[in-house]
Amino acid sequence: MEWINKQNVLIVGLGLIGGSYARALKRIGCHVSAIDKNEESIKYALENGVIDEGTSDGEKGADLVKDADCIILALYPTAAIEWVKSNIENIKQGIRITDVTGVKSCIVYEIQDILSDKAEFIAAHPMAGKETSGVECSDDRIFRDANYIVVPTKKNTEEAILWCENLGQILGFNKVSVLSPEEHDEMIAYVSQLTHCIAVSLMTCKDNEHLKDYTGDSFRDLTRIARINENMWSELFHMNKEPLLKEMDLFINELTELRNLIDKDDTEKIKEKMRLSTKRRMKFNK
Amino acid sequence: MEWINKQNVLIVGLGLIGGSYARALKRIGCHVSAIDKNEESIKYALENGVIDEGTSDGEKGADLVKDADCIILALYPTAAIEWVKSNIENIKQGIRITDVTGVKSCIVYEIQDILSDKAEFIAAHPMAGKETSGVECSDDRIFRDANYIVVPTKKNTEEAILWCENLGQILGFNKVSVLSPEEHDEMIAYVSQLTHCIAVSLMTCKDNEHLKDYTGDSFRDLTRIARINENMWSELFHMNKEPLLKEMDLFINELTELRNLIDKDDTEKIKEKMRLSTKRRMKFNK
Repeated sequence: MEWINKQNVLIVGLGLIGGSYARALKRIGCHVSAIDKNEESIKYALENGVIDEGTSDGEKGADLVKDADCIILALYPTAAIEWVKSNIENIKQGIRITDVTGVKSCIVYEIQDILSDKAEFIAAHPMAGKETSGVECSDDRIFRDANYIVVPTKKNTEEAILWCENLGQILGFNKVSVLSPEEHDEMIAYVSQLTHCIAVSLMTCKDNEHLKDYTGDSFRDLTRIARINENMWSELFHMNKEPLLKEMDLFINELTELRNLIDKDDTEKIKEKMRLSTKRRMKFNK
Repeated sequence: MEWINKQNVLIVGLGLIGGSYARALKRIGCHVSAIDKNEESIKYALENGVIDEGTSDGEKGADLVKDADCIILALYPTAAIEWVKSNIENIKQGIRITDVTGVKSCIVYEIQDILSDKAEFIAAHPMAGKETSGVECSDDRIFRDANYIVVPTKKNTEEAILWCENLGQILGFNKVSVLSPEEHDEMIAYVSQLTHCIAVSLMTCKDNEHLKDYTGDSFRDLTRIARINENMWSELFHMNKEPLLKEMDLFINELTELRNLIDKDDTEKIKEKMRLSTKRRMKFNK
């Protein structure tokens, strides 16, 4: 596999996900360099063998870009676009660039336009995370039970799609699949962004501190993701606004319908919904 | 402790919770008998040493009632009321009766009225469960990390409240506390019933079978309880209708507010909600 041993991989943004990529890629023999504006993150990663080379300095960073055989953008969506714009001059002709962002339509087409024939951008979404952040918490075991989605456009080559699928396998993801940007964004609005909106609203709708001795697993499970990185998630919501609003409306309407059935004591229709929900949920068991 | 060794405990309704009570009480030396309309459940429980005596026969059941030093009603709410009405003649004068139902105002006052001076009804809610049901799945380890709530009214004696708290401790619950029926019902509408409504609606709002390869822990966590016993939960919703509708409205309004902030790109207010939700959720960590 072309991934092994001979590649200079540059990771831009050395947080939880960037750091976890670095650990996995170093293990298979890649030469891993990293750029991060936070000097502490680079220092930690160098001292702990997470990366081979790294800098938070612009000039040294330019050299790392020039040497890179492939680049992984582990940045927030808008920062990823900005970085490509600012660094395009230094990117080696014809290399492949991928990313890790959780929204796609709003960045994939734009980055491909900026790069034009300079390099091929093939998007990917590693659906893994933790409630903590930073390279200090990075750990590629978070990929083991998770899904990795390659998100090509019509501009992508078969070779780049395959290269990106291989990356997902090398990182240790449980399942690698392919979706269009639009399919991805609808899916992610439903299974990830809507669920975060629900968890946040469940915590904010009521002063609940006095209830903490009475909660069971249900409440804990439904609010685990209510501990949320507000900078990242507000940006993800903003950049996937249309699909997210659509899913929120679907859910709010459905919950309102259930509310009204309870109000009208329509037990038969309530049971029908519960049977449907039970049947559907069983298919999601691991 | 008066619980140990000398009591004839009768459990009415030998399902998951009734069976788990039986296992814990037999272990500390109580003589445990049970009534259940399902002959198979009684047979299983006798064969597996879950109970000492049991029947699904009405006449033999009457004898067990006459012998009981205390009674635990492990029935659905309406069935609990009906059972007390039908069996009051056979209940020994002055004994204590408790229950396990998940809603309180709608049954506690009524059962106390029916019993009058015959016996003292002291309500309790063991906040434990599983996604499975039946005595075959009973296991008193489900009580270990769970909360047990004693729910007295002004009619209850100090002695009965203490007796019921002791029962919670004997069963192995992590925490035993006391709430009024109204406090209990508001709390349970929020932390348990609303969360079940959300989980069900999240599954029913969209045809999602094709998404099962893309879901991560968030979606799984938020929908675990969407596998739901439709007979029990539709009755619980019905019997706690007013508090539940209040909590559903609170939540729907809050989620709609978040939806509108996303629509208006009001990033600052979105972040504010996320900070509040993060701060509150941290207090719920175990």
